[in-house]
Amino acid sequence: MSVFTKIITGEIPSYKVAENDDFIAFLDINPNAKGHTLVVPKKEVDKVFDLSKEEYNALMSFSYEVAKAIEKAVPCLRVGMSVIGLEVPHVHVHLIPLNEMADIQFSKKVKLSNEEFNSLAASIAKNF
Amino acid sequence: MSVFTKIITGEIPSYKVAENDDFIAFLDINPNAKGHTLVVPKKEVDKVFDLSKEEYNALMSFSYEVAKAIEKAVPCLRVGMSVIGLEVPHVHVHLIPLNEMADIQFSKKVKLSNEEFNSLAASIAKNF
Repeated sequence: MSVFTKIITGEIPSYKVAENDDFIAFLDINPNAKGHTLVVPKKEVDKVFDLSKEEYNALMSFSYEVAKAIEKAVPCLRVGMSVIGLEVPHVHVHLIPLNEMADIQFSKKVKLSNEEFNSLAASIAKNF
Repeated sequence: MSVFTKIITGEIPSYKVAENDDFIAFLDINPNAKGHTLVVPKKEVDKVFDLSKEEYNALMSFSYEVAKAIEKAVPCLRVGMSVIGLEVPHVHVHLIPLNEMADIQFSKKVKLSNEEFNSLAASIAKNF
């Protein structure tokens, strides 16, 4: 069972920003930048392009709505998107508020307090 | 007019792998990894989340088909996807064959010959 499935079942707590029957979005707890969010299908599949076209399209469509909410809640030049998956074998779309290229290079991380995570999640959720 | 619009109109040549009425896919000529492909809407819009939901969904759906063709044509662990856009103000989806994290960090580049680009483009196009 992936760490994301444990978040989905509630076994591991998360800073949730959006959810429907098929997908969940929560803050990355080791963010590249403030507002870095992960969008995850509840069905545990390793590779994004192994999702059926229908599942993939639904994931991307849900990610669009989450990205629009992040844009409203977090000041940034634009929201970037990345799907990599070399570390956790459960599809996850990174949505990252970008101010510079380094924000999407996974080479730097920012530290946020529990209060900052809660406030960010609430602000994105309110705009979803 | 963006460099990608110049590719779309044919003013600048490209190693094309797929095209329909609304989108074009061609090899990145400064690739992170062999098979690094850009998928671009023919309509010149700066930010991906400024596309309408319908345009965005169609772009993502087209990108899925291109990614499946890349997976068949280029040996790799998986195909990664990234939309950044801080450099060229015309939406482009990066599809990158991944073997390691560095392949999607935009920190290293690979050099290919004209023959290698042509052969790669033909191989991906054949699988599209």
